[in-house]
Amino acid sequence: MSIHYLDNSATTAVSKAAADKAYYMMTECYGNPSSLHKLGINAELAVEEAREHVAAALGAQPKNIIFTSGGTEANNTVLFGATEALKRRGNRVIVSAVEHSSVYESAKRLSELGYDVQYAPVDDHGVVFLDKLQALLTEKTILVSVMAVNNETGSVQPTELIAKLVKKLSPNAFFHVDAVQAFCKMPLKPVKWGVDFMTVSAHKIHGPKGVGALFIRDGARLIPLIHGGEQQRKLRPGTESAPLIAAFGEAVREADIPSNLSAIRELNTYATEKLKTLDGIRFNSPKDALPYIINISVEGIRSETMLHHLEQSGVYVSSSSACSKGKRSYVLAAMGLSDDRVDSSIRISFSKYNTKEDIDALLSGLISGLTTLQKARS
Amino acid sequence: MSIHYLDNSATTAVSKAAADKAYYMMTECYGNPSSLHKLGINAELAVEEAREHVAAALGAQPKNIIFTSGGTEANNTVLFGATEALKRRGNRVIVSAVEHSSVYESAKRLSELGYDVQYAPVDDHGVVFLDKLQALLTEKTILVSVMAVNNETGSVQPTELIAKLVKKLSPNAFFHVDAVQAFCKMPLKPVKWGVDFMTVSAHKIHGPKGVGALFIRDGARLIPLIHGGEQQRKLRPGTESAPLIAAFGEAVREADIPSNLSAIRELNTYATEKLKTLDGIRFNSPKDALPYIINISVEGIRSETMLHHLEQSGVYVSSSSACSKGKRSYVLAAMGLSDDRVDSSIRISFSKYNTKEDIDALLSGLISGLTTLQKARS
Repeated sequence: MSIHYLDNSATTAVSKAAADKAYYMMTECYGNPSSLHKLGINAELAVEEAREHVAAALGAQPKNIIFTSGGTEANNTVLFGATEALKRRGNRVIVSAVEHSSVYESAKRLSELGYDVQYAPVDDHGVVFLDKLQALLTEKTILVSVMAVNNETGSVQPTELIAKLVKKLSPNAFFHVDAVQAFCKMPLKPVKWGVDFMTVSAHKIHGPKGVGALFIRDGARLIPLIHGGEQQRKLRPGTESAPLIAAFGEAVREADIPSNLSAIRELNTYATEKLKTLDGIRFNSPKDALPYIINISVEGIRSETMLHHLEQSGVYVSSSSACSKGKRSYVLAAMGLSDDRVDSSIRISFSKYNTKEDIDALLSGLISGLTTLQKARS
Repeated sequence: MSIHYLDNSATTAVSKAAADKAYYMMTECYGNPSSLHKLGINAELAVEEAREHVAAALGAQPKNIIFTSGGTEANNTVLFGATEALKRRGNRVIVSAVEHSSVYESAKRLSELGYDVQYAPVDDHGVVFLDKLQALLTEKTILVSVMAVNNETGSVQPTELIAKLVKKLSPNAFFHVDAVQAFCKMPLKPVKWGVDFMTVSAHKIHGPKGVGALFIRDGARLIPLIHGGEQQRKLRPGTESAPLIAAFGEAVREADIPSNLSAIRELNTYATEKLKTLDGIRFNSPKDALPYIINISVEGIRSETMLHHLEQSGVYVSSSSACSKGKRSYVLAAMGLSDDRVDSSIRISFSKYNTKEDIDALLSGLISGLTTLQKARS
């Protein structure tokens, strides 16, 4: 049976070039990047080359990039490290109500630790209400964290505008952007936008799981989450995962943002038009979402039921964020969707490897599901 | 030129089976282990199989193992997380004076945070003085961290004895063992010994860099270092690096402790006998060290000078711990060695891939170095 993998916002297949690079690093260029001999230096060069690729994709300098074990670690590093660095200046932390669990749960932990954590609400498009955010921004605010693109809906946040608001109303605060779902999918300019920290990850863009990076603006301070050796200027010690980092660099090097975006937009339009012809489908992603994600609800059919039905024809989608594994989506709830609609949501997410055949397979799976599964209920 | 890689305590080449497994996971079994569909479940199964291999190697249950991004993260998780969990019971933390930087620097940070951190001294064999440790153990002690095998000298700590002392004199404390240099090289029985936490890593045993694991005894508590999704019972959230974890499992599965140890002991004896015939060589590793490491000092020749000389004949060794990159070894200093001896130290470290030819190449490199480099100085 053919595989129609439409769960690319959960994770992606690693590209051949990236996987080959990881393999080479594991078996040939296996030195410890901190070792002083040639085998170590060669591994270090591979790590630094990857750092250049990631930096270039963010319009930043390599010195502003540290590698982490993934987006979750990078987000935690900022949430805990920036607040610790600024705790004498204030106590307020603001995150949007639709952040990924690695920001959301870290914020909850900060709240337990005594920080004044505020959640910026979103409209029915999943976009932060700017006036409501503005009302939360005080001089005592030390960190604001708003994602670039939502992982469940593709909703794009007005990151650049938020950066300006933060600088104006909370001059003591750092501004962090979790850009895991945006990286290499739309242009990101943290330096130009005035973003202090930006999180990115490899495994959403055909790099391997287990590696991410954090952009740290010149002058932005944080207390490291992890303490140890001299690696990465002590901001993130531990032997660098040279195989994963080099593979990450390769995946970034391969990413052609405009060309991929245009192909994905075409796929998205094709899918949207077809989905509109079906009865009982409601769109949860806003029209101006990043086209890599379409979130829909299928009336009367629970997400998992439809997911397993689609799986039978080789179509892989997600019920919500992979990280929440079956829990009800707080993201869709924050957008004001009814429980029924939340519980019947399906996330379809694309990558450059998808074709119209994948959409066709999805559609015929949805149609048969709508017929047989709804009938089963009545 | 042939490669004679004798820096295996810094890192190792990934075995073919482990690298192949990582490649398969990256390109074929690429689902997100948290995804509910078959591609996700297959990835999850691979992760759980690896967890079984790691657990079996420690005589533990899979539920007692969490995967981390490496030894450094695992050590940090315990140092910060166990102290946080027990902070109401006391304030004292004890680490040995020869811990790896990921424990040592974390302990320094705990001291900055107000904990009463004590360093247990070692004798000239690099082994913790049990009576001095005993004197430090109080009812207010909440964490004791002593490594199983030292990364610079191979000195083996009396872990089981220490566990008993801790339970007796500091019943409120957890006992953590950083076993990165011991794992799959000597039998480790954390459950039997009464160890609460044990850190292990993949890249010292022909697995990839970027993955490690933490044994957590039933009932041992810690506050997670990283917050986020539901993965690994929330003890270590974030999408699991299924490729690295599966490769780690493969490396563990391949490890034959007794057979490897016997081969390494033979290599060590061969090397030691030859080294003894050279003038100006002093042994820093004790006689009863784990035979995987021989630390020597070469009179009158700085470590880095000798390292680069050996490199010219394809022999790769280390000046001290790779993680400290050229800094003077606090481990050898804690053993009471003179500055001259510390500054001329060389770590030779073996793996199952080494042969007597590697030792012969090392010896001829040392001999030519002793002739030309000492002459250059005089």
